[in-house]
Amino acid sequence: MIRVCDLDTPALLLREERLLKNIKDMADFAKKIGVSLRPHTKAHKLPQVAKLQLKMGAVGITVSKLGEAEVMVEAGITDILIAYQLIGKTKMERLMKLLKKADIKVAIDSVAGAKELSQACVDYGKEVKVLLEVNTGLNRCGVLPGEDTLKLAREVVKLPNLKLLGIMTHAGHVYGSASKEEVLRVGEAEGEEMVKTAELLKDNGIEVQVVSVGSTPTAKISGKVKGVTEIRPGNYVFYDAIQIGLGVAKEEDCSLSVLATVISRPCPERIIIDAGSKTLALDQGAHGKSTVRGFGLVKGYNNVIIERLSEEHGILKVTPECPLQIGDKIEIIPNHACTVINLFDEIHLIRNEELIEIWKIKGRGQVR
Amino acid sequence: MIRVCDLDTPALLLREERLLKNIKDMADFAKKIGVSLRPHTKAHKLPQVAKLQLKMGAVGITVSKLGEAEVMVEAGITDILIAYQLIGKTKMERLMKLLKKADIKVAIDSVAGAKELSQACVDYGKEVKVLLEVNTGLNRCGVLPGEDTLKLAREVVKLPNLKLLGIMTHAGHVYGSASKEEVLRVGEAEGEEMVKTAELLKDNGIEVQVVSVGSTPTAKISGKVKGVTEIRPGNYVFYDAIQIGLGVAKEEDCSLSVLATVISRPCPERIIIDAGSKTLALDQGAHGKSTVRGFGLVKGYNNVIIERLSEEHGILKVTPECPLQIGDKIEIIPNHACTVINLFDEIHLIRNEELIEIWKIKGRGQVR
Repeated sequence: MIRVCDLDTPALLLREERLLKNIKDMADFAKKIGVSLRPHTKAHKLPQVAKLQLKMGAVGITVSKLGEAEVMVEAGITDILIAYQLIGKTKMERLMKLLKKADIKVAIDSVAGAKELSQACVDYGKEVKVLLEVNTGLNRCGVLPGEDTLKLAREVVKLPNLKLLGIMTHAGHVYGSASKEEVLRVGEAEGEEMVKTAELLKDNGIEVQVVSVGSTPTAKISGKVKGVTEIRPGNYVFYDAIQIGLGVAKEEDCSLSVLATVISRPCPERIIIDAGSKTLALDQGAHGKSTVRGFGLVKGYNNVIIERLSEEHGILKVTPECPLQIGDKIEIIPNHACTVINLFDEIHLIRNEELIEIWKIKGRGQVR
Repeated sequence: MIRVCDLDTPALLLREERLLKNIKDMADFAKKIGVSLRPHTKAHKLPQVAKLQLKMGAVGITVSKLGEAEVMVEAGITDILIAYQLIGKTKMERLMKLLKKADIKVAIDSVAGAKELSQACVDYGKEVKVLLEVNTGLNRCGVLPGEDTLKLAREVVKLPNLKLLGIMTHAGHVYGSASKEEVLRVGEAEGEEMVKTAELLKDNGIEVQVVSVGSTPTAKISGKVKGVTEIRPGNYVFYDAIQIGLGVAKEEDCSLSVLATVISRPCPERIIIDAGSKTLALDQGAHGKSTVRGFGLVKGYNNVIIERLSEEHGILKVTPECPLQIGDKIEIIPNHACTVINLFDEIHLIRNEELIEIWKIKGRGQVR
């Protein structure tokens, strides 16, 4: 048996016990409050984990890109929301192929996008289910809640071969929060604005089956708002230093880490490890102010700060008393698990500190 | 023939004419001043480009990681400097295998590292050439110039099966420069400190064949210092927005770009593209203060700023008059070409705006 400490570095570790606990916990929550769970698999990019999520109660999965959907369909998963605007001829062709094999739903936020999708469906003799993407404050894609969403809905229902299922949002601006109270406010507003908008659509004769919300920090808040039907958290399978910074998780909840080796200690206050930005990524909080210190948490060494990253070097600030020496291995909880997963080709599944399997990260690099 | 505008997005483009010009220009410079050129191939990770560099006059190549060396040896390249501290049993085993096929040089900066390497060589009946890594101001790996380097050299020459070739440095702190004058000062200091240290070693009876310096911004400065024997620029094959910000290159020198599609324009001042941090990376200047604006330069749209990136979305700030619409394609010069290359599986080689070949990026993700 290969033990964690024997692995060549840098290596990506996934602790199975913690992963299963995180998956079960969110599934139990969704079941208890009576909403559907459609986890965002861009967090892990692993068909194996998606299947565990489905087995424990998820109704389907969410992906960002067509390429991610292709990987998941290839692995046998058939209920997928592509929470992304698909634009362009090649994307339409690829989507039409996928529709032969799976129940795919697509996000739209513009009449132009809806028309292109509708036309492709007509050309290929297909129907596709769509969700209107609503901007509840992230200010990325999406139409504004209320009248703007109603206006888009009225155009969409006129278009042939599109089946409007409902509305969706992602309150990613929650990652800019400074406190648990702020997380609560963002989550509540996410749910309330969506439910209000759904009511407006229904009052105007437009059917709304799905009101879909949620990120890992807000899913357990917006999910509870009466009228919400679906939550789409992603990161919760792992958690990471950004989630810890927001007060959403504790260090012991984190299932993902990077194993690295000390390769140099040029002076008493500086240690160099073999993991840099190509391993740990440069994320310090995606959608707002930083809630993290440095470029990851060094497990068991609270005073060590990962101060800088070059591509292949991590530069750690330590006190002269720090016992780490050349050849020692350390474990790092990354700031943002989702982007770190995307840098690796494979992940080491660990049970009781032993390697039980190596999984290829099939969804890695699926940006198209 | 497939034209650039027909490619599915996001796609990584490499313009051959510009690539060849950049390779030739640096090779001509090295030849003219009489130093060896050993380009750092971590910039491109492509055996095809490494072979072009060798064909046009490079004496060998530099890599960061053993995995990169393995890819290059596999492709038939046999003179490689691993400018990195190799630590640990698995790394030693892999290095010993590589030594059977190629002339590998390795960087060392500690007695502990040198002893491990020496012992592995003894165990496997091999000899390896080593360069002492000197810290000329980046404050990453490396011993200080002067007495500290001499001290390490004295230990290294005592160890069996190591052949001390000389000294190397990388003045990466040049990326923190605010002006061309500062770039000049960093480059001159890089060369001068190294030559002085080489003299000190020679005065103490230690042979120094190689005095190796250089980054893309400093290679043409430190390379000219009398006594320097080798330069190791990497990024120059592409250039990027960070190099433009430093005054080292102009927009028209850049051979690498990312093609992206506008997928949403939710309001007159905001455009969303299908390239986010998983495509453009989050680099805003690696080793010091930022010299760039936003997350890349949009070619032909000087007033457009890539203001934020999520993983799959680029959020662009525009004026209401900006003509970009859903479905339009734009081309982006990334801030840091090297990290962007590492995010893609393949690169599109472009000649006269037509696709002539797709290259697999074989060195991508080689972090071990």
